[in-house]
Amino acid sequence: MGDKKSIWNFDMLFRPRSVAVIGASKKELTIGYRIIRNLVEMRFCGRIYPVNSRASILQDLLVYQSILDIPYDVDLAHIVVKSGHVPKVLSECAEKGVKVCIINTAGFKETGPEGAKLEEEIVKIAHKTGIRILGPNCQGIINTDPEVNAYCNFTFTRQKPGCISIFTQSGGVGEVINNRLCELGEGLRIYASSGNSCDIQCHEILKYWGDDPGTRVIICHIENIEDPEVFKKVAGKVSKKKPVLGMLSGRTRAGERAIASHTGSIIKNSLHNKTVVEDSGILLFNSLEEICQTARAFAHLPLPEGKNAGIITNTGGSGIIAADELIERGCRVPKLAEQTQKALRKGLYTEAIVSNPVDMLATAGPEHIEKTLSVLINDPEIDSILLNFITPFFVDCEAVALKIRDISLSSDKPVICVVMTDKNLWEPTLRVFSQAGIPTYDLPEIGAKVLASMTQYRGLVEK
Amino acid sequence: MGDKKSIWNFDMLFRPRSVAVIGASKKELTIGYRIIRNLVEMRFCGRIYPVNSRASILQDLLVYQSILDIPYDVDLAHIVVKSGHVPKVLSECAEKGVKVCIINTAGFKETGPEGAKLEEEIVKIAHKTGIRILGPNCQGIINTDPEVNAYCNFTFTRQKPGCISIFTQSGGVGEVINNRLCELGEGLRIYASSGNSCDIQCHEILKYWGDDPGTRVIICHIENIEDPEVFKKVAGKVSKKKPVLGMLSGRTRAGERAIASHTGSIIKNSLHNKTVVEDSGILLFNSLEEICQTARAFAHLPLPEGKNAGIITNTGGSGIIAADELIERGCRVPKLAEQTQKALRKGLYTEAIVSNPVDMLATAGPEHIEKTLSVLINDPEIDSILLNFITPFFVDCEAVALKIRDISLSSDKPVICVVMTDKNLWEPTLRVFSQAGIPTYDLPEIGAKVLASMTQYRGLVEK
Repeated sequence: MGDKKSIWNFDMLFRPRSVAVIGASKKELTIGYRIIRNLVEMRFCGRIYPVNSRASILQDLLVYQSILDIPYDVDLAHIVVKSGHVPKVLSECAEKGVKVCIINTAGFKETGPEGAKLEEEIVKIAHKTGIRILGPNCQGIINTDPEVNAYCNFTFTRQKPGCISIFTQSGGVGEVINNRLCELGEGLRIYASSGNSCDIQCHEILKYWGDDPGTRVIICHIENIEDPEVFKKVAGKVSKKKPVLGMLSGRTRAGERAIASHTGSIIKNSLHNKTVVEDSGILLFNSLEEICQTARAFAHLPLPEGKNAGIITNTGGSGIIAADELIERGCRVPKLAEQTQKALRKGLYTEAIVSNPVDMLATAGPEHIEKTLSVLINDPEIDSILLNFITPFFVDCEAVALKIRDISLSSDKPVICVVMTDKNLWEPTLRVFSQAGIPTYDLPEIGAKVLASMTQYRGLVEK
Repeated sequence: MGDKKSIWNFDMLFRPRSVAVIGASKKELTIGYRIIRNLVEMRFCGRIYPVNSRASILQDLLVYQSILDIPYDVDLAHIVVKSGHVPKVLSECAEKGVKVCIINTAGFKETGPEGAKLEEEIVKIAHKTGIRILGPNCQGIINTDPEVNAYCNFTFTRQKPGCISIFTQSGGVGEVINNRLCELGEGLRIYASSGNSCDIQCHEILKYWGDDPGTRVIICHIENIEDPEVFKKVAGKVSKKKPVLGMLSGRTRAGERAIASHTGSIIKNSLHNKTVVEDSGILLFNSLEEICQTARAFAHLPLPEGKNAGIITNTGGSGIIAADELIERGCRVPKLAEQTQKALRKGLYTEAIVSNPVDMLATAGPEHIEKTLSVLINDPEIDSILLNFITPFFVDCEAVALKIRDISLSSDKPVICVVMTDKNLWEPTLRVFSQAGIPTYDLPEIGAKVLASMTQYRGLVEK
């Protein structure tokens, strides 16, 4: 078995050249229909083989009665048939030489002792034949690499290609994360939901993404860690290469209890899981919103070299909110050096405040922002910049945005842009950022949290 | 002076029958233009008197050369002239019999010793004449009461009438809160920004809003508390009547330093401020986002009677996230009574999980939601409900929304609705909630935080 496994490669799961869907359906509101529709609509680069004992043509594709009838090689097979039929179908897949099955079907360990027995049965088949399983009770995968375009998944969310990869056990949580990133205009690299995780484990996928040149940031929502020692070893290596942002469910008794009936996992010790994840160098979050917002910054901005943040603002109040939040999360907001203050005084209004936060005042225009940003970026004592910009009606905000764009894109220090505005009235201003791939944040405390996480990661990598 | 003050009434500030704008301007991008434009556009119910030594007609209104030339009573005057002219203009206002001035002009205590002297001068005039001052260095007020429609403010944000009132010192922070609530479809009752707060203090406004029947929830962003004892006494009474959600800036050294140059306030002891605010029964937040989200729930939902939350979900993972968050914030997620479980088992799929969280499964339709919600609302051991609904493509989500709407509107327990969806694809489903005035939340942890705050407030009121 070991041999069979060793020739297996995660490309079969994430870059399949052909996909069979066993349990393909003509009914639009079924998973067996939706997966094929997604593969077709998103222009999957490989071949698609629907399998169903009855239908003969489905979404313009020839349907095979059995996986064994397909006269071509099949890398990956979706299994969507009823749970009782899964062992037989899985064995046929192994016989056909399929390398990996995504078992979307539910009704296994999560439902009680009988389902657990069924799950043991399929794990045995996998071990005996070397076929690998993602699932059961899972959503599937997505790979947006234009050379692959694999939407092996029944989602409706349409991600554009990006550099964030996402692992979740729960397909529902995965859907929520994908949807939120989409809403934020952010792209996806690879997504995987492993459901009950009876065979393929989180750490194996992390390892693959660690080596994937297209993945810059990893989001990882974990309900249970099967083998903490292996996880720590693998995740520890990956998190040195690229940031891994994690969220751990089942932190409380009610949470643990719910996980047992969700994916059938028994959490042995949730506190221990927390330690394992933290020891792996994974940045821990308790909020899906914060994990998404932070991933965007890691995806597009350079890392800060140290803890010293410079805050620029055009309204005092939001600068103060940012300062409090940054400091409470371990950053420093040092007074600026006399030389820096001098340089700022030359370029700003006399009433402007040139300590840290630098308050340029609401009337500050493009030339003031340009001056302030440049001076802080060139200050060797400042490692990162949090820029709070509220769009005043008496300022040419689009011109301000263009200055920020040009300077921050050529900066080797991260510039976190908080743009507080009416999104409808100032759409052209916001478009300057989105078109340049610069993430913007709506509120000062969110920008500050994001910058603090980047600073924390820099500290972890240096250890 | 005390006498003069005592006949003064905050209706003059928040329900003025006439407003003068001293420093009115024809230039569109000035505050002196914008305030008049807002009053006109938002159909201020009183009279508007522009004052400017030059212009004679402005936005179709007759311009007076001096406040003293206006032949009618003036309740409220905006002062937008340069800071050096403010004392003279303020004295004229007092002479004219104006009751309160909003001094938008900056350049006072926040700029250093000279500005501080100027501020002392205007405070002296106020004390001598009995005229009251909001500001200086402030944004102004808004009262959306259709009988008033006072947009004494240079904002661009257009709030619809609602029941949340907002106090901030910083106009910038006020703008951000107003804008975010607008974006969430939420209405405003009254808004006030007091800037340097040289005369009118936060606690006076809180007291007024405590008695305002149109205000159901108060948001309060505080940078400094001038008189902690008075604040505690007043705010303590108001917070028993209606929830006051507070955020305190200047929690750190850098924050304190920045406040000194923002509104000129010297924070004597930020830790002490925190205690004062907490002792007042104000719910404390560190996030503008959370304060806005929580205010929406208080504005529309009944309070929970106790700590026991029932979680309903159609995807396991999000239910677990909610459970963890609720428990970590002091709520309970108890196992459901045998009788309740029995009732649920009758109405749900056999694979559904009827402990707490109740996982109805993704295929659950309107009849399952109806059953589950009704059973939990009727369970005397459950005080509140957190409903997680992800919109599956194979479910009639609009019908589900209609059921949730009908049941939750007639419930005396709060039902917090988390609706996870693609906002464009499921717009009709979301519209069911928004048209009924039911707030929805995008993510389970946000809904859970909101419910935990409501539960905490219930505990504070009972004390």
